[in-house]
Amino acid sequence: MIHHDPEFVITLQRVIEFIGTFAFALSGIRLAASKHYDWLGGFVCGIAVAIGGGTIRDVMLGVRPFWMLSPIYMICTLFAQCVVIVCHHYLRRLDATWFLFDTLGLALFNIAGIQKTLECGFPFWVAIIMGCITGAAGGVIRDVLLNEEPVIFRKEIYAMACVVGGLTYWLLSWLQVSLYITVIATFAIVCAIRFLAVKYHISLPKLRDEE
Amino acid sequence: MIHHDPEFVITLQRVIEFIGTFAFALSGIRLAASKHYDWLGGFVCGIAVAIGGGTIRDVMLGVRPFWMLSPIYMICTLFAQCVVIVCHHYLRRLDATWFLFDTLGLALFNIAGIQKTLECGFPFWVAIIMGCITGAAGGVIRDVLLNEEPVIFRKEIYAMACVVGGLTYWLLSWLQVSLYITVIATFAIVCAIRFLAVKYHISLPKLRDEE
Amino acid sequence: MIHHDPEFVITLQRVIEFIGTFAFALSGIRLAASKHYDWLGGFVCGIAVAIGGGTIRDVMLGVRPFWMLSPIYMICTLFAQCVVIVCHHYLRRLDATWFLFDTLGLALFNIAGIQKTLECGFPFWVAIIMGCITGAAGGVIRDVLLNEEPVIFRKEIYAMACVVGGLTYWLLSWLQVSLYITVIATFAIVCAIRFLAVKYHISLPKLRDEE
Repeated sequence: MIHHDPEFVITLQRVIEFIGTFAFALSGIRLAASKHYDWLGGFVCGIAVAIGGGTIRDVMLGVRPFWMLSPIYMICTLFAQCVVIVCHHYLRRLDATWFLFDTLGLALFNIAGIQKTLECGFPFWVAIIMGCITGAAGGVIRDVLLNEEPVIFRKEIYAMACVVGGLTYWLLSWLQVSLYITVIATFAIVCAIRFLAVKYHISLPKLRDEE
Repeated sequence: MIHHDPEFVITLQRVIEFIGTFAFALSGIRLAASKHYDWLGGFVCGIAVAIGGGTIRDVMLGVRPFWMLSPIYMICTLFAQCVVIVCHHYLRRLDATWFLFDTLGLALFNIAGIQKTLECGFPFWVAIIMGCITGAAGGVIRDVLLNEEPVIFRKEIYAMACVVGGLTYWLLSWLQVSLYITVIATFAIVCAIRFLAVKYHISLPKLRDEE
Repeated sequence: MIHHDPEFVITLQRVIEFIGTFAFALSGIRLAASKHYDWLGGFVCGIAVAIGGGTIRDVMLGVRPFWMLSPIYMICTLFAQCVVIVCHHYLRRLDATWFLFDTLGLALFNIAGIQKTLECGFPFWVAIIMGCITGAAGGVIRDVLLNEEPVIFRKEIYAMACVVGGLTYWLLSWLQVSLYITVIATFAIVCAIRFLAVKYHISLPKLRDEE
């Protein structure tokens, strides 16, 4: 019954996309703040992280970018910006909270990307890639806009968690596990990988130089 | 009668898009020249500023990118490049002129973006965002290509003028003001904001560090 | 008979796109290795070079991105990555080989871009631009991701070879030369320009500063 309840899938997707937006926008605005960007620059960086990955996904899928259908993503980013402007003294103390939110957002965006791609009729390997793009591309756009080397390519297990999440979703779908369990298991795996990777400083092997 | 004269809207839009192209392309090519890029590199930077914002807008709107429908934008950029190659000694003396052209271009592109988005049937808040993207995204692409921090996020009131222009257009449309007056008023406001911001060194507040 | 044998054109295009992918991906992964990116970062840089230009082309043409139709491009990039991981000591000795592969890829991607654009019913000047984008945009994306100034704008005759290739294709089509000869001649010209440019250190004139 995996993709046969479109009403449920769509509702789930809405909730999924909304919760992640705040956490993603916040990470972009905080980085912009550390470089002393102005308010609008901060908003652009925030919105880039929040909707960048999903926009690239939707443009490639040939559907209307999701954020053009509802102003909720803009409002959510504006809210994140107010938080950064008003509470900038307290943000660092809550770093563990933001890390938690960001991880939840990653897992949720990843699943949203996978489901939307499957709904468009693409095979699973495309869905896994789109899940990674939805989860991780926003951060790459942010780093490009901030003129930094994308942190994702060096230090973080960010995108890898999406790949494993996608493979999990695939495996469970293939085993005909119910959608509820598939989504919850994928969500848990993505979060677990990211938590463990950061806690134990696990990272992918680096490519070696040619010396 | 605001969007009920498509012939007029389309003609206006053509004129609008053409005038801005030269000024935008020139700004990209001059920056490429200051970094000693080669001729083709200069052309790419010029075309990126000139058509970058509009192309992103059109791809998101799901319509054919405007520059593929007529070679005029390429010709315009080639002309700007010839100006840079032939007259490079005199360009700086005309800085006030280029600033004027660039500001006219910004106002025109902003309005073109708003109108095209409304014609595609999107709500006004999407049109305002698309107006900003049309006006300002080209400059961001230029700075990314030149490997610099986008100047728009720090020093210039560039994108803010587009936001205010969009809100003006919205307000006047909502008040049922005629299209002629709406366009002229929006144009004047965008230009005025940019002129005043540069003359009196007005800028948006910066985001504060977390120290 | 130039575009009247779609079966042949499509087959030719498939072969063309496949051969180039390995060489392009390899160049991206090697650059990522020189910056000590991790495995996934290397893969992303490789895939960016391999499919970036073609994806931008397809999104602008309004067709489904080519790499979503077959996993062969992903497999090809994975293979290139294995080569970099396993044989990193031997890669530099084969620099002449990689240069050859890269040049073949450039010529092939250029032609593929021209043909696909013509098939979509666009005029030749758009096809030439799309040929350049298909051949050269991947490298620009790679340099942006690696936070470097795009090498294409300064040192290499890369994109220029695509422009001349496109003009050659146009001229021969206009002269009603058969498709076989047109493709082979274009291919030879692009390769020749790149080889000669690198061998004799030919480059385009640089834009002059405004001093």
